[in-house]
Amino acid sequence: MTRQRSVVLEEKGRIALRDFDVGMVMGPEDVEIAVHTVGVCGSDVHYYTHGRIGPFVVDEPMVLGHEAAGTVVAVGEKVTHLKTGDRVCMEPGIPNLTSRASKLGVYNVDPDVQFWATPPAHGCLMPNVIHPAAFTYKLPDNVSFAEGAMVEPFAIGMQAAAKAAIKPGDVALVIGAGPIGIMTALAALAGGCAQVYVHDVVGAKLEVADRYDGIVALSPSRPAAEQIMDVTDGWGADVVFECAGHPSVYPHVFDGVRPAGAVVFVGLPVDAFSFDLVGAMAKELRMETVFRYANMFDRAVALIAGGKVDLNPVISATYPFEQAIEAFDRAVEARPTDIKIQITL
Amino acid sequence: MTRQRSVVLEEKGRIALRDFDVGMVMGPEDVEIAVHTVGVCGSDVHYYTHGRIGPFVVDEPMVLGHEAAGTVVAVGEKVTHLKTGDRVCMEPGIPNLTSRASKLGVYNVDPDVQFWATPPAHGCLMPNVIHPAAFTYKLPDNVSFAEGAMVEPFAIGMQAAAKAAIKPGDVALVIGAGPIGIMTALAALAGGCAQVYVHDVVGAKLEVADRYDGIVALSPSRPAAEQIMDVTDGWGADVVFECAGHPSVYPHVFDGVRPAGAVVFVGLPVDAFSFDLVGAMAKELRMETVFRYANMFDRAVALIAGGKVDLNPVISATYPFEQAIEAFDRAVEARPTDIKIQITL
Amino acid sequence: MTRQRSVVLEEKGRIALRDFDVGMVMGPEDVEIAVHTVGVCGSDVHYYTHGRIGPFVVDEPMVLGHEAAGTVVAVGEKVTHLKTGDRVCMEPGIPNLTSRASKLGVYNVDPDVQFWATPPAHGCLMPNVIHPAAFTYKLPDNVSFAEGAMVEPFAIGMQAAAKAAIKPGDVALVIGAGPIGIMTALAALAGGCAQVYVHDVVGAKLEVADRYDGIVALSPSRPAAEQIMDVTDGWGADVVFECAGHPSVYPHVFDGVRPAGAVVFVGLPVDAFSFDLVGAMAKELRMETVFRYANMFDRAVALIAGGKVDLNPVISATYPFEQAIEAFDRAVEARPTDIKIQITL
Amino acid sequence: MTRQRSVVLEEKGRIALRDFDVGMVMGPEDVEIAVHTVGVCGSDVHYYTHGRIGPFVVDEPMVLGHEAAGTVVAVGEKVTHLKTGDRVCMEPGIPNLTSRASKLGVYNVDPDVQFWATPPAHGCLMPNVIHPAAFTYKLPDNVSFAEGAMVEPFAIGMQAAAKAAIKPGDVALVIGAGPIGIMTALAALAGGCAQVYVHDVVGAKLEVADRYDGIVALSPSRPAAEQIMDVTDGWGADVVFECAGHPSVYPHVFDGVRPAGAVVFVGLPVDAFSFDLVGAMAKELRMETVFRYANMFDRAVALIAGGKVDLNPVISATYPFEQAIEAFDRAVEARPTDIKIQITL
Repeated sequence: MTRQRSVVLEEKGRIALRDFDVGMVMGPEDVEIAVHTVGVCGSDVHYYTHGRIGPFVVDEPMVLGHEAAGTVVAVGEKVTHLKTGDRVCMEPGIPNLTSRASKLGVYNVDPDVQFWATPPAHGCLMPNVIHPAAFTYKLPDNVSFAEGAMVEPFAIGMQAAAKAAIKPGDVALVIGAGPIGIMTALAALAGGCAQVYVHDVVGAKLEVADRYDGIVALSPSRPAAEQIMDVTDGWGADVVFECAGHPSVYPHVFDGVRPAGAVVFVGLPVDAFSFDLVGAMAKELRMETVFRYANMFDRAVALIAGGKVDLNPVISATYPFEQAIEAFDRAVEARPTDIKIQITL
Repeated sequence: MTRQRSVVLEEKGRIALRDFDVGMVMGPEDVEIAVHTVGVCGSDVHYYTHGRIGPFVVDEPMVLGHEAAGTVVAVGEKVTHLKTGDRVCMEPGIPNLTSRASKLGVYNVDPDVQFWATPPAHGCLMPNVIHPAAFTYKLPDNVSFAEGAMVEPFAIGMQAAAKAAIKPGDVALVIGAGPIGIMTALAALAGGCAQVYVHDVVGAKLEVADRYDGIVALSPSRPAAEQIMDVTDGWGADVVFECAGHPSVYPHVFDGVRPAGAVVFVGLPVDAFSFDLVGAMAKELRMETVFRYANMFDRAVALIAGGKVDLNPVISATYPFEQAIEAFDRAVEARPTDIKIQITL
Repeated sequence: MTRQRSVVLEEKGRIALRDFDVGMVMGPEDVEIAVHTVGVCGSDVHYYTHGRIGPFVVDEPMVLGHEAAGTVVAVGEKVTHLKTGDRVCMEPGIPNLTSRASKLGVYNVDPDVQFWATPPAHGCLMPNVIHPAAFTYKLPDNVSFAEGAMVEPFAIGMQAAAKAAIKPGDVALVIGAGPIGIMTALAALAGGCAQVYVHDVVGAKLEVADRYDGIVALSPSRPAAEQIMDVTDGWGADVVFECAGHPSVYPHVFDGVRPAGAVVFVGLPVDAFSFDLVGAMAKELRMETVFRYANMFDRAVALIAGGKVDLNPVISATYPFEQAIEAFDRAVEARPTDIKIQITL
Repeated sequence: MTRQRSVVLEEKGRIALRDFDVGMVMGPEDVEIAVHTVGVCGSDVHYYTHGRIGPFVVDEPMVLGHEAAGTVVAVGEKVTHLKTGDRVCMEPGIPNLTSRASKLGVYNVDPDVQFWATPPAHGCLMPNVIHPAAFTYKLPDNVSFAEGAMVEPFAIGMQAAAKAAIKPGDVALVIGAGPIGIMTALAALAGGCAQVYVHDVVGAKLEVADRYDGIVALSPSRPAAEQIMDVTDGWGADVVFECAGHPSVYPHVFDGVRPAGAVVFVGLPVDAFSFDLVGAMAKELRMETVFRYANMFDRAVALIAGGKVDLNPVISATYPFEQAIEAFDRAVEARPTDIKIQITL
C-alpha cells in the first residue's frame, strides 16, 4: 500500500491530517479493510498531550487510532472465514502466535505484541489498513460500524468481567465512571451480575451509566463502600472493579468487598498510592488485574448482536475524517458527560 | 405446633386436604412462617402418580409441597437477620451443617439432607411452617409471593448456570423446554450468556421461552445440534444444558458443543440410554451435573429483584388452597403450555 | 470442666503456669481431648511480647496455645466419627456454621469465628480441652503427636498452595524462610510444583528448607527475582508466595512472576509499604490472599500420612509442660535456625 | 530433506525398514533434529495390527512413531530459543496457530492439527526430522533421551492431572494400569495428590505401579470402589481417572468418587457401554475428558528434571533402530509387565 491521508501525531501536542506511508504489506493470512469508523481512546489523547505513555515514547510521527470498524476489500489467499464485503471490527494487538504466552491462550501478555498506535507501531486512522484475518471479526448485520468501533473499548470491560469470574447473581461495584468504568459496568451486568453499582466523585459522569436498567449510580458525595454496605445488609459486593486509577481510591478499595470476594484492577494508576493489604487479607480477597484483552472480541460482538448490551448511548459525538483534529481537541477537553468521540471516514 | 389443615398424599394416587400434625418444634435458630404461596413441582406430581421416586417411597401419608414463600410470624431467640413481618422464601433442604460436605460449601450433597416432601420428610402445603432461619431468605418489596415461590425451581436453573461457569458472551443451547429447561434458559441468559437457544420436540412448549428477549426457540423438527452449528458458523455452543432427561437426547448431546466446551446435565433420565463418550473426548468436553442447589437462593432473589429475570410469564395458573387437589390434577395433565401451577393459602 | 494447670498470659510480658478455669462445657457434638503436644506459634509469642495483635488486645489473663494434638477421652452423644482413644489434632477456629460465609464453604472468613488464644477466646495449653468434633481430625497411626501438632501451621501453607491453584509442574518462589515460608514451600511442593525456590535475606534460615529434595535455597545476597529469571530462561515463576511480610519485599514482589502468573500473599505486613500495581497489571497477574485456612486439616493429615511431607525436620526443640515458660522465652529469641518449638504435656 | 531409512507401515500388518522420502522442507521457524530415541505407542501398534483408528485409515505407506527425543542439528533463521546441539523432545501435534481453538490456548482441539503418524501425516521413526521450534522443548542435562522420549506419553497423564484440577492432598483412584494409567498415576501424585490408588483386573500390570512411593496397588480381585471406600472411611476418592477404556468399568465408574468429586476420562472406549448418569448426578460429580495435551511438555520436563517423577522404571525394553520391527512385534505381544518399548537410532 502506498501513501494515504492519515491522522498523524507529528510530535507531542501537534496532530496533522496529511499523506503518510506506514509501509503495510499484504500477506496470505491478512485482509485489507476500508476503515469506516474509528473511536478516540484515552491513550491516543495521552500521546497527543504528553508524547508518551510510560516507556512508550513518540519519537517520530505516528498514525493514531486503534478502535476501528470497516469493510473487507481484499483477502489473502489463506483466509477462509472472511470475504470481500464483510463488515468487520479489528483487534488492534498482534501477538507472536508461536510465543509461550500465545500458546497458553494469553496472547495479550506476549511481550512481543504489536499494538496499533503504540510506538513504534502505527494506528489505523487512515482510509485502508491491512490486518491479520485471525484478529479481524465479522459484524452481524444488526451491529453498526459505530458499535463495531466500540468493540475494542468494550472488550476491556469484557476482560475485566471475565477476570472477575462472575457467578450468576453477583453484586458488583464499579469505581470510576469514565469510559472504561462504563464499559466495565455494562460487561459485568451482561456478564451475569444481578446489579451493578457505579461510583464517581464527579456526579455528571454518572448520568449516562444511570440510564441503563440494572446499573445504579451511587451518590458522589458519600464513600462508595458505605453505600454498598447499606444495600447489601453489611455483606459487601461480590466484586469491586477499580476503574478510576486515582490514588485516593486505593486506600479504601477493599472496604466494600464481601468476605472471600474479588477486586479487579482495571484503571491504571499514574501516581503512587497506599494500599491496605491487611484489609484484603482479613477478608481473604482475590485480586485480578487486566491488561487489554484476549479472546474477547467475538464475545463482545455476540453480546451486542444479541441485544444484551447497547453501546449507542455512550457515543457522545461523531466527527467526519476531515475534522479529526477537532475530534481530538474535543477529547482533550474531557467534558464529564463525554464518554466516547468517534471519527468516520 | 398442632394439627393444621394440610395437603396430604395419603398414598399413590390419592391426595386429601385434611388436618394433620407433622410434629414441628420451634428451636432457637428457627423461624415460623405463615405460608402464602406454594408451587407444584414435578416431583410432587410424581409422588402423587407413582408413589415413589427412585429409592424414596411414600409408605405413610406425607404432606406435599416444597416451593414456598410466606411471612415470618415468629423468630427464635438466636435469629438475627429476620424479624416478624418479613416476607420470605424458604430453601427446602436442611443439611447437617457439621458434615464434611457442608463444611466444603456443597451442603446439597450432604447425604443427611432433610428435604421437604421427600420421604420421610413432610412438605409445606399447610398454613404455618417452622424452618431454620439460615435457610429462609428475605424477599425485597418488589418481589411478589408468587415470584418468591418460584425461587426454588429457579435456583435449579441457577445451579446449572453456576456449574456451567459461563463466561460473559457465551452461547448456550438448552435441550428440553419444560419447567426446568425454561428456568435454566433464564438463569443462563441472566448469568452471562449472549444468547440462549432452546430446543424441544414439542413445539407448544417453546412458546413461553420464545417470548423472552435473548432466548431463541429452535425448530422442533430439526436436530438441535444442526441448528446450533448453523448459527455459530460451525463452531458450536459454549455450553449445552441437557434438561430433557429423555433417552433420545443423550446419543447426540455432544454434537452441538464447541471444542473444549461444556455440557451440564440437569434433567434426570429415567430410562437407560447410550452415550457417545468418544465424541465428547474428541472435543475434550467438560461435563457437569446438577443436584438441587447450594448457595443459590440469595442470588436468585437478587436477579429477580434487580429486574434481570421476570418469572411471572411462567406462572400458568394459580389455585386457592381449598382447590389444591384440582391444582395437582391440572399438573398431572401436563399441558404443553403449562409451566408452573401455584397454590395460594 | 474445672480448674486445670494452664499456660496463662497474665499480661504483656508475663506468662504463668498456674491453675485456671476457662469455663468449658461439653455439648452433644463435642469431644474432650487429653492434650499431648502444643506448638508455639508466632502469634502466641507476639501476644506475649506486645500484648496485642492489631485489634485483638489481651485485657485479661488468657491461656495461650492453638497448635495441638492429643487423645480423645470423651465424646458427645451425637458424635459419630470419633471415639475414645482416637489420636487427633484440632482445628482451632470455630465458626458459626449457619453464617453466610460458612454455608459458602469459607468458614475461615466468618466474622464470628472463635479462635483459640485470640482474645477473648482462650487457647489450649492445659491438660484437657473440649472441642467440636467437626473440627477435630483423627490422626493415622503413622502420624505422631508432634506431627499432629504441626498440622495447624502446615494448614496455612496448604491454604496458600490451594489459593495458588497450582498446576502440575509449576515453578514456585517462596519469599521468606520463617516457619510460614517453610510450611508454604512444603505444601507447594507436595501440592504439585516441580520445583520450589526459597529466598531469605538471612542465610541461616534457609538451611532447613534446603535439606528437602525439590526445594532450592536461593542466594541471600542477590534479589530473588533475578535468580528466578536465570533459572526460568527469563520467563518467571508461575507462582510467588510472599511469606516475609517485610516492607522491603513488596516493591519487587511482582518482578519474578511470569506473565499471567500469580502472587499469593501469606505474610502479614506490619508496616506501610509501596506496591508496583502497574507492574502487576502489565503481566496481568492474579493475586490471592490467605487468612488462616478452611477445609485443609484432613488434606494436611493425608499428605503427612502418605509420606509426601515430612514435618519432623522443622521441629527445632521440645519442652515439657513444666518448662512452658522457657519454651516461650526460647521462641522470643527467634534464633534463625529455630523453626518450631513444641511443648508436651 | 531427501530419502532416509525409515520405519514404514506399508499396510495393515506389514512394517518395513527402508528408504523413504516424507517431503519435509525447512522453514524459518523450524528446527532439524537428529532423532535419538523413539517410543512405541499403542496407537502405532494399533495402526500396525488394524490399519486404522476410527476415521484415520492407513491408505498409503506411512512412517510410524511420535514419541521422540534427539539433538538439534540446524535451526531456522527466526528461531531464538534453541540452538544446534541442544538436546530436545518434540510435541508431535502441530496446530494452526491462527485458529479459534489455538487462540484460546486449547490448540489440541484445533480440528486442523497435524499429528505425527496419524494419516495422512507421517511419523518420526527416521534419522532426521524437521519440526516447528515452538513445539520443540529443550531437555536439561539431567534428563536422558530415554526420558525425553517418555515426555509425550507422560504429557497425557499431565493433561489428565491438569483437567482434574487436583487440590493439594487429594486422594485419587486410577482405573487401568496400562501405560496411560501409570503415566496418569505418576502425574496425579506429582501433581498434588496425597495418595494414588491404582486398580486393574490383571494383577501383573500393577507390579510396576506398586514400586512407586505414594502409589498403592489395589487388589485385582475386588471392585475398586469398594476398596476406595474402605480406605477413605466411606467418603470416596476426590478424583477417579478412568484409564482402562473397557466397557466393564463404566457402569461402576462413579461408585468410588466422593460427593462433588470428579471423574476424568482418559481411556478411549472401543465398544458400547452403559453409564450410570443418575449416580453421577446424585453426587453432583464433574466429568472431564482428555484429548492428547496442550501446554504440558514444559511442565512434564520440569517434573522429570526436578526429580519428582522417575520414568525409567516404566521403560521395559530398548531396541536398536535396525531391530525396529522386532520392537513392534514385542509391543504387539502386550506382555502384562511391559509398559514402554523404545527404539534408539
